[in-house]
Amino acid sequence: MDLQDIRELAQPSESKAMLLVLDGLGGLPREPGGPTELEAATTPNFDELATRGDLGLHVPVATGVTPGSGPGHLSLFGYDPLVYRIGRGVLEALGVGFQLRPGDVAVRGNLCTVDGEGRVTDRRAGRISTEEAIPIVEAMDAIEVPGGEVVVRPVKEHRFLLVVRPDQPSTAEIADTDPGRTGLAPLEVVAQDRSAEPAAALVRNWLAELPGVLGTRDRANMGLLRGFAQLPDWPMFPDVFGWRSLAIAAYPMYRGVARLVGMDANEVPDGPEALAPALLAARDGYDFFFLHVKGTDKAGEDGDFDRKVATIEAVDAVLPSLLEAGPDTVLVTGDHSTPSTMRAHSWHPVPFLFAGGPGRAGAERVKFGEKACRMGTIGQIRGCELMPLLAARAGRLTKFGA
Amino acid sequence: MDLQDIRELAQPSESKAMLLVLDGLGGLPREPGGPTELEAATTPNFDELATRGDLGLHVPVATGVTPGSGPGHLSLFGYDPLVYRIGRGVLEALGVGFQLRPGDVAVRGNLCTVDGEGRVTDRRAGRISTEEAIPIVEAMDAIEVPGGEVVVRPVKEHRFLLVVRPDQPSTAEIADTDPGRTGLAPLEVVAQDRSAEPAAALVRNWLAELPGVLGTRDRANMGLLRGFAQLPDWPMFPDVFGWRSLAIAAYPMYRGVARLVGMDANEVPDGPEALAPALLAARDGYDFFFLHVKGTDKAGEDGDFDRKVATIEAVDAVLPSLLEAGPDTVLVTGDHSTPSTMRAHSWHPVPFLFAGGPGRAGAERVKFGEKACRMGTIGQIRGCELMPLLAARAGRLTKFGA
Repeated sequence: MDLQDIRELAQPSESKAMLLVLDGLGGLPREPGGPTELEAATTPNFDELATRGDLGLHVPVATGVTPGSGPGHLSLFGYDPLVYRIGRGVLEALGVGFQLRPGDVAVRGNLCTVDGEGRVTDRRAGRISTEEAIPIVEAMDAIEVPGGEVVVRPVKEHRFLLVVRPDQPSTAEIADTDPGRTGLAPLEVVAQDRSAEPAAALVRNWLAELPGVLGTRDRANMGLLRGFAQLPDWPMFPDVFGWRSLAIAAYPMYRGVARLVGMDANEVPDGPEALAPALLAARDGYDFFFLHVKGTDKAGEDGDFDRKVATIEAVDAVLPSLLEAGPDTVLVTGDHSTPSTMRAHSWHPVPFLFAGGPGRAGAERVKFGEKACRMGTIGQIRGCELMPLLAARAGRLTKFGA
Repeated sequence: MDLQDIRELAQPSESKAMLLVLDGLGGLPREPGGPTELEAATTPNFDELATRGDLGLHVPVATGVTPGSGPGHLSLFGYDPLVYRIGRGVLEALGVGFQLRPGDVAVRGNLCTVDGEGRVTDRRAGRISTEEAIPIVEAMDAIEVPGGEVVVRPVKEHRFLLVVRPDQPSTAEIADTDPGRTGLAPLEVVAQDRSAEPAAALVRNWLAELPGVLGTRDRANMGLLRGFAQLPDWPMFPDVFGWRSLAIAAYPMYRGVARLVGMDANEVPDGPEALAPALLAARDGYDFFFLHVKGTDKAGEDGDFDRKVATIEAVDAVLPSLLEAGPDTVLVTGDHSTPSTMRAHSWHPVPFLFAGGPGRAGAERVKFGEKACRMGTIGQIRGCELMPLLAARAGRLTKFGA
């Protein structure tokens, strides 16, 4: 069912809903047969919700596919990430909290090293440190050229964000300049459609100034560009589900992807303790709250099983204060799995629990975790099916076909 | 797999199949951890079939989406309701048992109240009673206008069915006349494509006569029209599956949706006792039988848990006589859930059981119900996947790819 169909079913409701995302929640056992991080965690409050509620597993993108943060969250918001694709440049802007305007063309840049003939000798400039990269990127940002505005922001190590704002309307149909291997010069900036010529010309003007600014350096003396993209023209989450919607997140990526689909977004300090006060403060103005916890994913990426367990327990400890703020229906899940044994995002289905609204919970006591979710009342569904289900439980969706 | 693919796999078979639909079969526990209606019912005959057969849950339309009766049944017949969409006017005709002909344009009407300037003051004419509406609708039906035939039928309360049969071929691409709120006059009848002009002109002629017939009334003195539609041009069920197909149902809606996909349809008295005699009488002329029981849905909509239980038990009691009539393969399910706690259709997956044909039943004794179906051998599938599975069990589908 696509978002346009859902929009036609949306109806008013007084009920408030909360999506609590523990980033990278899903995990794997540390030893064969052992518990996952979530199963190892002592979570009396999640278990209480799970016992009254409905459990399942979700596949964020597709079976066997490991989601990035952007697609993982789009899926949770109800946007099939195979249909709603974000360009790399836009993702990069979300990640550093740069607020793109309609018409901006954003692209991911890599600092690279070229030799005297302009041929690339290192596509990542020796993966230079963020500290070394920052002044280089600041110098690139200071360049002024005819044809519009150009903004450059550091990302991490050799990566930077380039945003061009041409004087004339432009699309982003521009080919990558990264030749893909060393020994070749960066490719020309080619507009793949005439509609992209204003942005392409502006990028060309800017690139032409780079040797003057970076040319004395023996590495990180040129930039390669990949993934020119613009803000997408998508149905907006608040329109689709009829919810006044707020994201509460410490990290720019998650506020960014929420804003991308039309939510408001409030910044909070890192850590689960900050969530309840922020939720309470915003309660009256919104019907839908997306709360983001980053620590679980970080611990997983650091390979720290115990810290991931402790982070899950810390979120469990603040759950009562979140529930006191009064959401009627609750969805707790992750945007993907980040098993600490893998030190990375993974494709494994992600546990979820629904509470509030009519459901089929059984009588037995349940521990929130991967195995219980595998046997849960809802079963395994796609990540983008979760939001229609939350809306249904909140009484937001009317009948399909009289 | 779409219906065209299935049609290419269909092969002759001597076996007969029965789809027994308990409308709104799926339910919810009355108290947390308690049984659903189906689980609370004593159903030795269903349980016997379930123990020998295969169980699962189906999602009629999509996760979180509550099906209307039309889409719910189309799904059971193998028609993906997100692909095969019925217009509102056609659904309305099915509901009152009006047999549309190809080329007819049907639309749902609401009696409304307009003031002296023709502005709508009440879009539903105070939700007048069916009794009050019937003579009004009869007066509207008596209007004769140039350009073709016009038929008006009462539905319920302020709702009526309008069918126009223009002298010239016409499509139904006509915009709604309901302004959507009070204080505005009804919208003009606008053909959105020239191909719809004959029907649009006929509707205009008819609407022009309404003030003369209803103008002296102080309420229910005008009509608003929504959802102009025609019989769809779909693959026919008997062709797709190679079955001579018969519906046996007490209510016009279910005979109507069966006829819509090309089945024959026999009317029977309400109640499960009428089914076996009707099945037996028709046995030799058909290979596929769709039997419809309405009482389960009615009890659910009335919020009567115990009556829904009793209705399920009454169907269980006639099951042996249905099986004696000799179907080789049987599918028992609902078109959607109607939990009596919700007094309405709901999105919850619907239990089903297959018996007859090769399956993977286990050894343990099974009680037919939501929890057993959640753990059943088939798992959770889409509603429109059930009919191919029934056809397969009946030996009706040959290999895909030689």
